Amino acid sequence: MNTTDIKIDAHIEANLDYWIQQLARLCAQPSVSAQNLGIVECAELVANMLREQGFAAEVMPSAGNPVVYGEGDGRSDKTLLFYLHYDVQPAEPLELWDSPPFVLDRRGDKLYARGVTDDKGHIICRLAALAAVRDALGYLPCNVKFIIEGEEEVGSPNMPAFVEEHQELLAADACIWEFGSVDYSGTPQQSLGMRGICYVELSVKTADIDAHSGLGGSLFPNAAWRLTWALSTLKNQDEHILIPGFYDNVVGSSQRDLQLIAQLPDEASKLKAQYGLDRFLLDMEGGVAFRKTAVFAPTCTICGLESGYQGPGSKTVLPATARAKVDFRLVPDQDPADIVQKLRTHLDAQGFSDVTVTYLGGGRPAKVDPDHPFVHLVNQAARDVYGVDPVIEPLIGGSGPNYPFIHTLGLPLVSAGIGYPGGQAHAPNENIRIEDFIKGTRHTARIIERFGRTTD
Amino acid sequence: MNTTDIKIDAHIEANLDYWIQQLARLCAQPSVSAQNLGIVECAELVANMLREQGFAAEVMPSAGNPVVYGEGDGRSDKTLLFYLHYDVQPAEPLELWDSPPFVLDRRGDKLYARGVTDDKGHIICRLAALAAVRDALGYLPCNVKFIIEGEEEVGSPNMPAFVEEHQELLAADACIWEFGSVDYSGTPQQSLGMRGICYVELSVKTADIDAHSGLGGSLFPNAAWRLTWALSTLKNQDEHILIPGFYDNVVGSSQRDLQLIAQLPDEASKLKAQYGLDRFLLDMEGGVAFRKTAVFAPTCTICGLESGYQGPGSKTVLPATARAKVDFRLVPDQDPADIVQKLRTHLDAQGFSDVTVTYLGGGRPAKVDPDHPFVHLVNQAARDVYGVDPVIEPLIGGSGPNYPFIHTLGLPLVSAGIGYPGGQAHAPNENIRIEDFIKGTRHTARIIERFGRTTD
Repeated sequence: MNTTDIKIDAHIEANLDYWIQQLARLCAQPSVSAQNLGIVECAELVANMLREQGFAAEVMPSAGNPVVYGEGDGRSDKTLLFYLHYDVQPAEPLELWDSPPFVLDRRGDKLYARGVTDDKGHIICRLAALAAVRDALGYLPCNVKFIIEGEEEVGSPNMPAFVEEHQELLAADACIWEFGSVDYSGTPQQSLGMRGICYVELSVKTADIDAHSGLGGSLFPNAAWRLTWALSTLKNQDEHILIPGFYDNVVGSSQRDLQLIAQLPDEASKLKAQYGLDRFLLDMEGGVAFRKTAVFAPTCTICGLESGYQGPGSKTVLPATARAKVDFRLVPDQDPADIVQKLRTHLDAQGFSDVTVTYLGGGRPAKVDPDHPFVHLVNQAARDVYGVDPVIEPLIGGSGPNYPFIHTLGLPLVSAGIGYPGGQAHAPNENIRIEDFIKGTRHTARIIERFGRTTD
Repeated sequence: MNTTDIKIDAHIEANLDYWIQQLARLCAQPSVSAQNLGIVECAELVANMLREQGFAAEVMPSAGNPVVYGEGDGRSDKTLLFYLHYDVQPAEPLELWDSPPFVLDRRGDKLYARGVTDDKGHIICRLAALAAVRDALGYLPCNVKFIIEGEEEVGSPNMPAFVEEHQELLAADACIWEFGSVDYSGTPQQSLGMRGICYVELSVKTADIDAHSGLGGSLFPNAAWRLTWALSTLKNQDEHILIPGFYDNVVGSSQRDLQLIAQLPDEASKLKAQYGLDRFLLDMEGGVAFRKTAVFAPTCTICGLESGYQGPGSKTVLPATARAKVDFRLVPDQDPADIVQKLRTHLDAQGFSDVTVTYLGGGRPAKVDPDHPFVHLVNQAARDVYGVDPVIEPLIGGSGPNYPFIHTLGLPLVSAGIGYPGGQAHAPNENIRIEDFIKGTRHTARIIERFGRTTD
């Protein structure tokens, strides 16, 4: 380890209690976007915490919740952008928490609070890393910018437009994403992209009121049947999505992607046990094909069905309304707006103009070149901190607003962070291990320091 | 009108207040089979009311709620069986009643209470008619039997077995069914049969717990998809039911049935307006074909769908379970047990062995020959009382336990009663018009008196 890294690490260790206090301060401010709870207050708090660390910061309006923008000048002409979010998931169900969700509680080597890992711990991690680097070097080695949004937990509906509108302000050379984690073995995982999503509701109304099935069964259109037939035209049992043109823009996985996927741990049997599955789709049993399908296949998932009588026993009713929630996970270069249009065209062509399609939100898929120099820099920094090579996920199954950062701003983007598999993000007793916070902060600091020294 | 009829009618008029009091007494005893409320008490009360009218009566056990059996000897060797039920629908929603549901309330020319038309008013109607005939003649002209069950409102699950077991006790020559009604124009309607029903729940469980759709979408079987695909194999958009052998036992409508159907009023436009329909199935617009399809086509109705997330907005969940309620209306000579078996075979053949079929109840369809002398007797009696020819429905769309009476006991069976279209059966403010009670009682009395005189 060189003397700079030693100084940085010593600063992080020496200031650990201070940063845990700052994390406690941030977690004490509820900021539940789904419930519109404490959003504006939390945005102001985050801006103040940035200012306290010497950054310029402002709370900017968006079409939805305010966005905290921050910046600080460094010695090189490189700019590193941190994407983060200050909003959190609802704390409910409260009775399953062992300590109050909005009070940071230290128990043993862990810290508990809503948002402690997702994503407030990452906000503090970035600030702690920046302070350590600046104090160790006497200056910031690169320019830094922050974009800390307040709607990530409700799908970041306004992030693409915000980024589009503020391209100049947000201009940078690389981006560190909001999360990062080690796996069960302590190996850091780094993901280079996320699937997109297109979430729709299909609804049918065939009458003003439900009818008795003995009266209407032979005569009246049935909303539940209309919906069932419409859905059955979307995907066949071979998991092939039947909407014409659905696969048109699918790029597929590269040889390099497959190489990375081959190196990932195989979690098929763990998943089978955890979820109580008898089988996987398409007779898959694990292996590279399984891990490739997991993320590189676009999906059409029925997330919910609702119609008519759902109670115990029987009720002889013919439903006037029926609804389905449907979630398409998209892979590069599919586009949710295009998918919604193709879905509408398909339903009309199949005779289902009576099925209403309501777009409930979505985002485009995006991924970064695994051989981008910035990716190598982040990986090398992880190797130095964690002592092992990170595993690289070329794409993950979930979705997030990384498209505007990768494509609108044109940034390489890598995850680095403080999470671990037991972190209970979105669930009661959300927590981090202090050791992961330290390592994630050291990792972030090394990225900043080395990025300042890059010349390409 | 002959002197006997005049005497009978005078007796009914003179005793009207007494019978309204008896109806109030019966309605004051709640007897909600779906809620197991007051069932045994009501069975005892009904048996006592039969005894007070000079009939032998006993409360007999069944595999479910007790059955009240009653009998009385008459002058001829003919026996007339009255099928009725003492159970009622739940009174809820209570806030929509204008008077307490279990207190008979007279407002103007109407009587209000839960069960006043379905079916306690009919129990009183039969007793009032029998008393009038006996007092007018000085004797009962035929033997009478009563079978008054306590599970009609929950599908009469034990009636077929009860009738099978007690064939000798229930032996008779004809049966008067539990209901009967005039239409909007005051014309009495008489139905000669009911469709059968086979009510099932289809359920699928693909995992122990729901999964995140970003994780499982490409990998995990989805219960909602399994259910959707399974359902879509049951019926096509031409309303053709695709279960092999489903139509094997369908007899179809006779020329005589079609003749009767041709004489029925056309209610297509009334239904369209009442239910807010844009169209009927199969481009039907009314007419004889419409009225024939309404009752002579067997159906497959999805009564309910339930899976995954059903709340507002989006939740990216992959459901582990899904359920559908499905109701098949059956026509002569289909059999629910056979249909369940064919459904199971079909689902297995289509690869849906993972879809569980749970039989929730049903009964066989049955109808009576429109030219049976007893049908003519009942119709002639109606003409005399109402002054118009009754309209004859060879089959109605709803279902009830008439199969064991028509086929196990071999009885001609006709409806005759006190209902009208505004009676709100099953709904708040259930009511009868006193005038309909009087006419229905006169009609019942004439049937009894004439049936005693038949010799064939």
